[in-house]
Amino acid sequence: MPYLVHLVILLFIQEWGQSMGNGLLLAALEGKNTSRPPVWLMRQAGRYMPEYRKLREKHTLWQMFHEPEIAFQVTCQPIDILGVDAAILFSDILVIGEALGLNVHFPEGRGPFIDFSGDVKSLDERNPEEALFYVKKTIELLKPELKVPLIGFSGGPFTVASYMIDKGGKGELKLTRKWLAENPQSFHLLLEKITVATIAYLKMQIKAGVNAVQVFDSWAGVLSYEEFHEFCLPYLSKITEALKSTNIPVILFCRGSSYFAADLAKAYPACISLDAHKPLAELRKIIPSSIAVQGNLDPYLLYSSKDKIKEKTRELLRSMQGDPGFIVNLAHGVFPDISVDHVKCLVDTVKEFNAR
Amino acid sequence: MPYLVHLVILLFIQEWGQSMGNGLLLAALEGKNTSRPPVWLMRQAGRYMPEYRKLREKHTLWQMFHEPEIAFQVTCQPIDILGVDAAILFSDILVIGEALGLNVHFPEGRGPFIDFSGDVKSLDERNPEEALFYVKKTIELLKPELKVPLIGFSGGPFTVASYMIDKGGKGELKLTRKWLAENPQSFHLLLEKITVATIAYLKMQIKAGVNAVQVFDSWAGVLSYEEFHEFCLPYLSKITEALKSTNIPVILFCRGSSYFAADLAKAYPACISLDAHKPLAELRKIIPSSIAVQGNLDPYLLYSSKDKIKEKTRELLRSMQGDPGFIVNLAHGVFPDISVDHVKCLVDTVKEFNAR
Repeated sequence: MPYLVHLVILLFIQEWGQSMGNGLLLAALEGKNTSRPPVWLMRQAGRYMPEYRKLREKHTLWQMFHEPEIAFQVTCQPIDILGVDAAILFSDILVIGEALGLNVHFPEGRGPFIDFSGDVKSLDERNPEEALFYVKKTIELLKPELKVPLIGFSGGPFTVASYMIDKGGKGELKLTRKWLAENPQSFHLLLEKITVATIAYLKMQIKAGVNAVQVFDSWAGVLSYEEFHEFCLPYLSKITEALKSTNIPVILFCRGSSYFAADLAKAYPACISLDAHKPLAELRKIIPSSIAVQGNLDPYLLYSSKDKIKEKTRELLRSMQGDPGFIVNLAHGVFPDISVDHVKCLVDTVKEFNAR
Repeated sequence: MPYLVHLVILLFIQEWGQSMGNGLLLAALEGKNTSRPPVWLMRQAGRYMPEYRKLREKHTLWQMFHEPEIAFQVTCQPIDILGVDAAILFSDILVIGEALGLNVHFPEGRGPFIDFSGDVKSLDERNPEEALFYVKKTIELLKPELKVPLIGFSGGPFTVASYMIDKGGKGELKLTRKWLAENPQSFHLLLEKITVATIAYLKMQIKAGVNAVQVFDSWAGVLSYEEFHEFCLPYLSKITEALKSTNIPVILFCRGSSYFAADLAKAYPACISLDAHKPLAELRKIIPSSIAVQGNLDPYLLYSSKDKIKEKTRELLRSMQGDPGFIVNLAHGVFPDISVDHVKCLVDTVKEFNAR
């Protein structure tokens, strides 16, 4: 008898824990979270995990993105191992290139890129449901299994364009920015086509069951104020506007969001994911309270000692205490050579935090 | 007789124009300029100029930095060709490595770097006057010839360290930031040594006759708020503090200055050079009026049509009209493939602007 009671209590706690985990992210995205803040991490599934590397040894990156069974496994790894409060679809922002009729490359030893001749007019905005059917399949595999919300995603139109033009060359995206200065019309046409495909792609993900989407305009931070307002923000606004009727929250992310935090708010996303250049509590002041904020721990912090990780995580938690629209995350993705232990230390520190 | 009058007037106008050119920059740095704002451009001497390329064909970059006669010629080129209001010493921020007993490399086809084993303690802070005597010589050649103020410069300690550790690898300076997270003590020691050498180096330049100095902490913009406050700002403050008694104005530059504008002001420089991520008039509001501001035209603007260059330059001039501490410059350097005509269009637009 005592054993049975024990079992029932255990099952109850597990259920409760799961539904708590499930509820936290969506509550925060609605600005209504009264418990501890939810935590998930960009690139929470990735090379820093031995379990990921084991899969990676047997498959190319291309296969891992394109085979739903593998993408399913990778998506689940951080939920099981770290206990984060949300899953993010394992995929890549560049696959949208396939919906434009282009080849996407994930070469070994250098960054991925989209093969693009430069002929904007010839871009074929095929139905993403056809080109990216495998993403839909991954989501359909995940949904019945996951006990936490699933975040879908796409790249921001400017960032996708930069991978077509600068071929993943990092730095300040010289070719892309030269193009937009010399030929703004054709650049707008390119952004327009990417935006149309992106909206259809995100709608497909939503239809398949994701609970939120994040738009990664990762490279927008290199833009000047003028460029950002002409070539980035209007297309992000088109995306949030087009998804409004779905009632699925949209998170906007860019590196350089400290520059553009107040401007990003004008696109009316559910949430803005912020970088580490300013204290989050300071950025919070310039973002309307109706918009949630996500971030903003420095990924380099994870190279420090566990004591420092705990200290800085708690500092962030205290500075945002009581904010019903706060989601803990990094400023950008987990690096491949970070120790899993250190990542877990961050997650545990959040989960142990007393929100009251 | 009418010819003589003509000649006298011409000579007078020339003198007046020169002293005007000469006076503008220093007046603005003191926050006391009542005429049109002065204009000079980062990397105003460089590959975009046919005259520079002609010299470059005959000499390696190393020679151009180390031979005072050549550095003299290159420094003067933009004064003659563009008519800018200040000269900036032709040199490189990495030569400070030589004052630490290290070899500096300027390889063809990739960025320069400082050869450093990683052994901080063994760094030899030699007297920069000895190691960098050739810079002193260049200044001594320039001073009697120049009719405009001469700006000396150095790198910021963090940026110099990054060229020692990441070897000029761009992006987010992964190795440097991993080092400072894992071993902050040795990184502080490294910064300390670079700072000591930098202060002595700048004092040597000032003694030789430069009228102002600019500290290029070019890569500081990649830093998080915490990193910036621990590993960048304190060392910039040490430099401004150490140079205070010279009465020579110090301009602080970093990419990412929009993030850190208010923080940079805490180092009490004479001027902050700002990037293009925010409108300058907006940044002006958070910088004390006792500090001049420099910037902030997007270098990519120079790829646009001349009409657009004029329009955007005038927009900046109007937005800052009446500010006695405003210097026109780019957000960062002129690119090698920009047309000289476009650069001249920018400079002329400033010089034709009616400040009243």
